[in-house]
Amino acid sequence: MTMTVKSYTAARWHAPSGERSSLLNASTSEQVAVVGTDPIDMVPVLHHGRSVGGPALRELPFHERALALKRLATHLNGKRDQFYAMSAWTGATKRDSFVDVDGGIGVLFTYSSKGRRELPNTTVLLDGPTERLGRGGHFVGQHIYTPRRGIALQINAFNFPVWGMLEKLAPAFLAGVPTVVKPALQTSYLAAAMAEEIIDSGLLPEGSLQLIAGGTRGLLDLLTEQDTVAFTGSASTAAQLRSHPAVHTGGVRFSSEADSLNFSVLGIDVQPGSEEFELYVRQLVTEMTSKAGQKCTAIRRALVPDALVPAVIEAVATRIAGKVRVGDPTADGVTMGALVGLAQREEVRRSLDILSAAADLVVGDPDDFEVVGADPERGAFLPPMLLWGKDTSRSEPHDVEVFGPVSTVLGYRDTAHAVDLAARGRGSLVGSVVSADPAVVRELVLGVAPWHGRVLVLDRDSAAESTGHGSPLPHLVHGGPGRAGGGEELGGIRSVLHYLQRTAIQGSPRAVSAVTGTWITGSPRNTGDIHPFRKSLADLRVGDAVEGGPRAVTPDDVNRFADLSGDHFYAHTDDAAAAATPFFDGRVAHGYFVVSLAAGLFVSPEPGPVLANYGLDNLRFVTPVYPGDALRVTLTAKSISPRADADYGEVAWDAVVVNQRDEVVATYEVLTTVAKTWPA
Amino acid sequence: MTMTVKSYTAARWHAPSGERSSLLNASTSEQVAVVGTDPIDMVPVLHHGRSVGGPALRELPFHERALALKRLATHLNGKRDQFYAMSAWTGATKRDSFVDVDGGIGVLFTYSSKGRRELPNTTVLLDGPTERLGRGGHFVGQHIYTPRRGIALQINAFNFPVWGMLEKLAPAFLAGVPTVVKPALQTSYLAAAMAEEIIDSGLLPEGSLQLIAGGTRGLLDLLTEQDTVAFTGSASTAAQLRSHPAVHTGGVRFSSEADSLNFSVLGIDVQPGSEEFELYVRQLVTEMTSKAGQKCTAIRRALVPDALVPAVIEAVATRIAGKVRVGDPTADGVTMGALVGLAQREEVRRSLDILSAAADLVVGDPDDFEVVGADPERGAFLPPMLLWGKDTSRSEPHDVEVFGPVSTVLGYRDTAHAVDLAARGRGSLVGSVVSADPAVVRELVLGVAPWHGRVLVLDRDSAAESTGHGSPLPHLVHGGPGRAGGGEELGGIRSVLHYLQRTAIQGSPRAVSAVTGTWITGSPRNTGDIHPFRKSLADLRVGDAVEGGPRAVTPDDVNRFADLSGDHFYAHTDDAAAAATPFFDGRVAHGYFVVSLAAGLFVSPEPGPVLANYGLDNLRFVTPVYPGDALRVTLTAKSISPRADADYGEVAWDAVVVNQRDEVVATYEVLTTVAKTWPA
Repeated sequence: MTMTVKSYTAARWHAPSGERSSLLNASTSEQVAVVGTDPIDMVPVLHHGRSVGGPALRELPFHERALALKRLATHLNGKRDQFYAMSAWTGATKRDSFVDVDGGIGVLFTYSSKGRRELPNTTVLLDGPTERLGRGGHFVGQHIYTPRRGIALQINAFNFPVWGMLEKLAPAFLAGVPTVVKPALQTSYLAAAMAEEIIDSGLLPEGSLQLIAGGTRGLLDLLTEQDTVAFTGSASTAAQLRSHPAVHTGGVRFSSEADSLNFSVLGIDVQPGSEEFELYVRQLVTEMTSKAGQKCTAIRRALVPDALVPAVIEAVATRIAGKVRVGDPTADGVTMGALVGLAQREEVRRSLDILSAAADLVVGDPDDFEVVGADPERGAFLPPMLLWGKDTSRSEPHDVEVFGPVSTVLGYRDTAHAVDLAARGRGSLVGSVVSADPAVVRELVLGVAPWHGRVLVLDRDSAAESTGHGSPLPHLVHGGPGRAGGGEELGGIRSVLHYLQRTAIQGSPRAVSAVTGTWITGSPRNTGDIHPFRKSLADLRVGDAVEGGPRAVTPDDVNRFADLSGDHFYAHTDDAAAAATPFFDGRVAHGYFVVSLAAGLFVSPEPGPVLANYGLDNLRFVTPVYPGDALRVTLTAKSISPRADADYGEVAWDAVVVNQRDEVVATYEVLTTVAKTWPA
Repeated sequence: MTMTVKSYTAARWHAPSGERSSLLNASTSEQVAVVGTDPIDMVPVLHHGRSVGGPALRELPFHERALALKRLATHLNGKRDQFYAMSAWTGATKRDSFVDVDGGIGVLFTYSSKGRRELPNTTVLLDGPTERLGRGGHFVGQHIYTPRRGIALQINAFNFPVWGMLEKLAPAFLAGVPTVVKPALQTSYLAAAMAEEIIDSGLLPEGSLQLIAGGTRGLLDLLTEQDTVAFTGSASTAAQLRSHPAVHTGGVRFSSEADSLNFSVLGIDVQPGSEEFELYVRQLVTEMTSKAGQKCTAIRRALVPDALVPAVIEAVATRIAGKVRVGDPTADGVTMGALVGLAQREEVRRSLDILSAAADLVVGDPDDFEVVGADPERGAFLPPMLLWGKDTSRSEPHDVEVFGPVSTVLGYRDTAHAVDLAARGRGSLVGSVVSADPAVVRELVLGVAPWHGRVLVLDRDSAAESTGHGSPLPHLVHGGPGRAGGGEELGGIRSVLHYLQRTAIQGSPRAVSAVTGTWITGSPRNTGDIHPFRKSLADLRVGDAVEGGPRAVTPDDVNRFADLSGDHFYAHTDDAAAAATPFFDGRVAHGYFVVSLAAGLFVSPEPGPVLANYGLDNLRFVTPVYPGDALRVTLTAKSISPRADADYGEVAWDAVVVNQRDEVVATYEVLTTVAKTWPA
């Protein structure tokens, strides 16, 4: 069976029209698909993304985009089986396929969830607090994020055709930016099959996803300052793309995730036979063998205390002999599949030769190993191989990324030496530290952090739940400085921001409020006849406000509050002790009492659309309240975020409590849920 | 008098040893300084920064760095006068010099203040909340920022030699990264004089500031993945630097602030004679004339409703005739000085010729204007000049940045057309909108935001306090996408982050806590004999905790709390109405009561080192509390930030309230000030 990899551009599928290339099963070298290699005409692609996909996405508020991702994830979750067979063609075991397929779908779920929990259900995202820029409060600043008006071009690597596509799609989609996927040719059939399922589902707005399977010539030529390129692949290709005029002159935002000589260090505190020793060896073997080592996050450099090098080598050899069977991933008992193809195997052999000048092969033999259920000549198989770089001053182990089941052990003298060796990777995606000693952990992690995008600490406490060295998680940034490309993907909402433009808005509070849709101190308030707690979301507007008070605070109030709460802290009960602090002239009312009585002054007690107070944010007690002070409160609707999937939404209220001298006593935000309609 | 511009590298001042170039007074062409033009040997510079400056800075916690900036700012504030005379050599008026000198010192003050208010007094900065990655809570993630281990090379433009240096120095210094300044040759004498004052003050650690006055050949060759370059200058130079192998392959972090065709739009709602009309014209003339238009933020494109173009041109002409006098900036009555030199004047004339193909000169004549107190032939003078681009489809007004006192009026049809014209700058530093209509403001600002780093809205409300279109503020980001360089400077702590590496740390709560120095849910707690409120900062450690309760909540408690606070909200008083909400089964205790009684359970009431509760953060009510529930609280020292300049510090406590079923009822952070020693 041979599949033809088609492109999806401008709302239609297109078979390749020119030159074609055969794509082969990694284990058998049988043809499984053909793909075009002529360049894709980018004019209609960019036009469609910018004129159809972008506007459709930008119209949706964040929660609607997030819900679309959830619906899509749920849909794809039910279709997973159809991708596993195809994934096996790439050389992937079932476990590898889980990482690619289920992992990719998992990213969609996480982004959907984070999008709804961490973003407002609006189209303008605020960044940081309002900055007061003038003494009188008539001139303020507010940073906002708005969607860039171009497309997000993802240029992907061959190793995770599904995950690689979805982990870039989710944040761009949530940001409101349409995606164009350029899959790696070798495994483009799987990316295209997933894209087809997505597009056929109709769950994403048309134009939000296009797929171009073809050559790369001219790919960036037409991109402009509103477009974003996210590249995963080799450092040399990344450098080439970064040198393209569209990037260095045209203002294309370019991010890359490239070569990485990731390290894993066995802490100086760890003894052979201990739990951490076993964890170290197990993780190392896992990273050498999963996806046949074709992972940008795999451990390439195993840093081990000098004295433990032989023990580690022996333990790795034993574990590989006991656990690892190389072969056709669909054959029984196989735990490590093929590399993506014979060319990749040749590439690995070539890199291995270079590396071998500086390190001795101590586990595995590329010319002598068992292959289960496949012809070793026709399948791209290699065994897991461990080298030992005895001379740590050699550069090869730090510079040569062998993109296969290969790792190099390097002995180190002390923790500072381990940090130095880790840094010689000149920037990596991930490092891991296996140690149970907090001081060792701290020194290692803070020492290597500037060179790494992610550092995993493994110990007996976290072992059962740890997702492991090699697994990027949607919650955490994926990327690294220097050689690793300098980009950042994932990391929750952090990667959504890469597709947005941050802009500082300055002006009067009224003007800034008009832009953001959020009430800002100094903007007009509407303290009309209707108490804002009597308005459902249908009627409530930012700026709707209520004033309450004054209420005098009596010494008896403070005593009663102390008795009722049980809080007899000296600052509230003992004049002399309170006055001895740098802050008070005598005993003061409890801050908790101030916010409690403020609520008494602002609530409208009868049943109404305000359903619950679910929290407070940024409460600051600014001026002490002494018995005898009289307090007033102003509560103003600050931001309104109706839920996309419930009949209520969240309203944050600005609260300001002042005393009889108009000094600000307390500021905070009151968080409530409010019904969309009332009566319901 | 002729000054020799020296370099300060590796703790010594060096006079230039090779070729020298003369630097001339902008108004007279008399020699004022000489500067070397041979390349600087970067080996000792980089070595000194990395081995001396970096370690010294990284040893200081954030507040110590911030205080050093404050001391420096205070010191320089007393020395300003000595820079004004030298600033006049550059062609700057007194007012221009204020922007450069006082503005630069102001940036130091703001960063000092923000550093102490917005950063902890530690050396590791946390980014975002802890992410729970495993169901059992044994595997968590936390993003941190650590200082990059290289140097910050700033390559500056000629126009603001002091401000340009200090606005880049402050965030790098606060980040803990040593700076190397490469000033623009034309005005390097002023940058060097300021650098000398800074270095002689001894207020910054040696190695944190070096200055290299010389040629640029080989400047980037030795930079690595830990170094950061912040460039200000032309887009063509930026593109050249971005194409350097150190950047595209070596992983140098590169940021640029380059050409910018900034716009200012007169809103479609504004009538001639109105306050906003006057504000628009006044701001436009200010931006044309201040610094003789040599500002990357100056208004190059004045977008005006078609019908108002003649009125705006006339008003600009009238205002220039009445207010602007060009000449030697030290001469009486001069309001606009010289361009930086005759070469720059030639450059402006050349660009003006190109622009003139698409726009007619309607105000000002480069060949006929009055010059006060100077020889027009020997000084680099030009008059303010306004052009009118009648055919808005021409590209020149959007592409040709005439870096002098020049602006072009372009008529627009409607707001959408104005947005399109603004976007044709292909990315700018700043735009401004002059309008009093919130709907017009919203459409314009959100329309242009993706192409701009900053957008100012000007109206009668903010006019008196507005700092104006052309003034970057330390609180707000300065930079823009596309042609403007794609970089971001300033923006408060945002630009500090550019000199730090963000790293995701994963592991057990104990391990992550060891790295961050902050207590994390799941880390061990120390609930020993001593109540943590009895410990001063000398003894208190993160993880020190106290447990309190249980306390049963009675119906009478709820009633008494309602009476004392005055908060009779139905959810606390009316079983049936409470049960009708989606969240409650009957009436519930006030959230304010829950946190109040929790305080009653955790405080140690006697006088002690805990001085005050100054706020609460992130309070969330997770499970309703019904009368009859019994609550317990655990309070744990989460983060400790001793003040650098007071005998107390801030301690944030993690608070968790649970009920009799161990369900979490509320979570929050309690913010306190705690004495460094006790008894004091």
